[in-house]
Amino acid sequence: MTLIIISLYINLNFAFPMVDSTVFTATTTPFETLSHAQLLKIVSALPDAITPAYVYFEDYLLSQINALKQAFRPVDSAIECNIRYAMKAQSNANILKIFAREGIHFDCSSVYEVMRVMGAGVDPGCIELASQELTKGQLDMLRKIPGSEKVKFVASSAIQLDTLLADEQFKNQVLGLRVNPGFGSGYHSKTVVAGPKYSFGIWHENLDQIRSDFTVRKIHSHIGAGSDPTYWLKSAEYLMTLIEKRYPHCEVLNLGGGFKVARGDLDKAIDILPIAREALEIVTAFNKRTGRTLKIEIEPGSFLVANSGILVAEVIDRMSTRTETTAGEGHNFLKLNTGLNEMTRPALYGAQHSIRFFKRETEEIGSETIPMVVVGHCCESGDLITCDPSDSNALREVPVPASLQPGDFAILKGVGAYCSAMSLKNYNSFPEAAEVLVRSSGEAVLIRKRQEFGQIAQNEVDVV
Amino acid sequence: MTLIIISLYINLNFAFPMVDSTVFTATTTPFETLSHAQLLKIVSALPDAITPAYVYFEDYLLSQINALKQAFRPVDSAIECNIRYAMKAQSNANILKIFAREGIHFDCSSVYEVMRVMGAGVDPGCIELASQELTKGQLDMLRKIPGSEKVKFVASSAIQLDTLLADEQFKNQVLGLRVNPGFGSGYHSKTVVAGPKYSFGIWHENLDQIRSDFTVRKIHSHIGAGSDPTYWLKSAEYLMTLIEKRYPHCEVLNLGGGFKVARGDLDKAIDILPIAREALEIVTAFNKRTGRTLKIEIEPGSFLVANSGILVAEVIDRMSTRTETTAGEGHNFLKLNTGLNEMTRPALYGAQHSIRFFKRETEEIGSETIPMVVVGHCCESGDLITCDPSDSNALREVPVPASLQPGDFAILKGVGAYCSAMSLKNYNSFPEAAEVLVRSSGEAVLIRKRQEFGQIAQNEVDVV
Repeated sequence: MTLIIISLYINLNFAFPMVDSTVFTATTTPFETLSHAQLLKIVSALPDAITPAYVYFEDYLLSQINALKQAFRPVDSAIECNIRYAMKAQSNANILKIFAREGIHFDCSSVYEVMRVMGAGVDPGCIELASQELTKGQLDMLRKIPGSEKVKFVASSAIQLDTLLADEQFKNQVLGLRVNPGFGSGYHSKTVVAGPKYSFGIWHENLDQIRSDFTVRKIHSHIGAGSDPTYWLKSAEYLMTLIEKRYPHCEVLNLGGGFKVARGDLDKAIDILPIAREALEIVTAFNKRTGRTLKIEIEPGSFLVANSGILVAEVIDRMSTRTETTAGEGHNFLKLNTGLNEMTRPALYGAQHSIRFFKRETEEIGSETIPMVVVGHCCESGDLITCDPSDSNALREVPVPASLQPGDFAILKGVGAYCSAMSLKNYNSFPEAAEVLVRSSGEAVLIRKRQEFGQIAQNEVDVV
Repeated sequence: MTLIIISLYINLNFAFPMVDSTVFTATTTPFETLSHAQLLKIVSALPDAITPAYVYFEDYLLSQINALKQAFRPVDSAIECNIRYAMKAQSNANILKIFAREGIHFDCSSVYEVMRVMGAGVDPGCIELASQELTKGQLDMLRKIPGSEKVKFVASSAIQLDTLLADEQFKNQVLGLRVNPGFGSGYHSKTVVAGPKYSFGIWHENLDQIRSDFTVRKIHSHIGAGSDPTYWLKSAEYLMTLIEKRYPHCEVLNLGGGFKVARGDLDKAIDILPIAREALEIVTAFNKRTGRTLKIEIEPGSFLVANSGILVAEVIDRMSTRTETTAGEGHNFLKLNTGLNEMTRPALYGAQHSIRFFKRETEEIGSETIPMVVVGHCCESGDLITCDPSDSNALREVPVPASLQPGDFAILKGVGAYCSAMSLKNYNSFPEAAEVLVRSSGEAVLIRKRQEFGQIAQNEVDVV
């Protein structure tokens, strides 16, 4: 199978002074370029050709890694920038290994994620845990794994710091503190994580109360997913003031991630390049002014993986509530063999995932379309795939080819992040979908088998 | 361990003419009655005492089954009422077996649920599938299971009906049609499932277009979860008119479920008795008027299991953004070792789950409380346990004992339905929690082991 590699990068909205015009952001993803023949080859790589399946494209993953590296590690900058992949976005060991191979480090949001990425063979020295939960019991569990003594920690609360510093083994691995800088930003209120309404990190006004018997070498902050670049940079400025004033031994400023990508037609992706440039300029100015050598670190998740993944699904039904009496209120519905159990983002955030349709037997799909609402297969009205971005309960009609029949295909965009890793798994007892990786060679290989039916209840104990 | 059995039923809000004052609805659940000693015994039944764990109480389950049976099958009624458990609410085989033992039938929302309840040893003749997805491939899968020829079907669309009637084996098992009666009701817009905006069942105005070469013996409808009883009864009246006019051979009217229970302090449970009585009266009048012997069927999920379950969790952290400058905007936060991955209802629906706290070492918890926002352990701000019922993103403060420390316990109410079965399982790579059943004997027994860490990625294939 030949894949069209994304080699043409276009940068249209450039609002910041441009420094290096060779760095661009990809605007075309595998979703847009997939051909009928490529789709059929992917489906044929699935055991018994059973859909739905998540499909990831290695080349696009690499192109995103490179875009980020080029933006944040330009040759003309004196600033070092480390990239940590926020692995909660997608945690398949094969994806993690690709990142590791490319020199990307890892940000973990639970001790289980640490164990998972270590299980993928990643050097523990490249792993950092900055989580909401961190208990003595979990440290004891981690301790049993050879190499875990190299894992690094950022304390997200005073209590976490006490837990870590009381641990003879891990206390020297505590690099610093996660700080809530006082304000946040995100594409949905559920993805903002900083400001007075959020429990992530130590509130900036409370840093005085944090014990002073350890050296802060890193300040970590993340203000939200899909955040406004202005706030992201404002947070960077604020944290540097904090570092200058309070943390003379701080060597690294971790600015989190949150770089928005477009997964749906209505989404507006941010342009990573001007943000990167401005961040590097702020740190350069800081280092010049203070004579320090502060490095920066970023923690993207969605930016790296979201659009490297599509979901391949099938049309299972179509029906209508549109009649003469319901005009205006009634709709035509298209049902897919996927839904909340594979992709919960629409229901949680009103998230948008563009859809393309393919006939099963022919490339010809016809030009006639019908406005339809696309829904999932779960017995729940919240299983709405084309929802309104501002209201996950409001239906959104999209043009659907009139020729579509049950058995034809739908592919959904941007499911590489927070879909396989964050979904209502096994709801309605649907088995977990398979995962496929389309290698740089063009070969489509299974990287996760579809869950066997018996595995759903494998831990049940027969008592009654 | 001795458990306080709920034997006192109080019925305070009785708005309909009362026929049988011996039938009541329980207002106290295991959540309210659990003692410190009982909690510790439950925790000690967990391997390594690891929380969180879902805990179900057999006696309360039985009390709900009996309340429903008494309400819908009173001795003085000529109407037969069959109860089908909507198993998507909670699908552990042990819970299913308790229902089967009590003569409850099963409503399945996927062919996988059919296989699951058959796997629990349930008589296939008691199983009915009325789902959003039903394909030829799924029928072929089901066919391979001995006994599956007894499973019954309700077609939810014209296409499903074609699929079923084309199947030589299953075509005689098709009892009837799921109908969208034109209006719906639910406690949240995500739980309404009927009306022109919903794709569940055949739109009532389109029944003319349904093929007439099969006998409709059952009409099925479900208008939503936590529905307004007035609409539920209105739907019953409407469907009976339909049956009278159009379906002379229809023997059963399935009215779905949706009987709201109170899982949170702000919730208002419906009183099942007057609804049942009115439904029975409507059908009695219908049968008298028409000379037919229509039976009714109901499909409750949450009513039966929601409050039979609690989630036992632990306090892991506390922190604050409340300072002089953030007064009004800042909050005190309490973090638990559970969240979105065990309980997604708050994020999806603004659902309320009351919380009680227990010290680990002593029964004395003190009377001083602090208003706090309770949050979960996932790296996501949407992991808000005490949210506003009208806005899942808005924080709600609840009184939390000032004495609470990490390691103390929290129990959450009403997690018996749509929690273990519908959650962002393995998000942040947290393993699936254990499930415990407190038997009628008082013994707490493990009915599902906590997921082993290695099982999370057990289907991954090492490729990269």
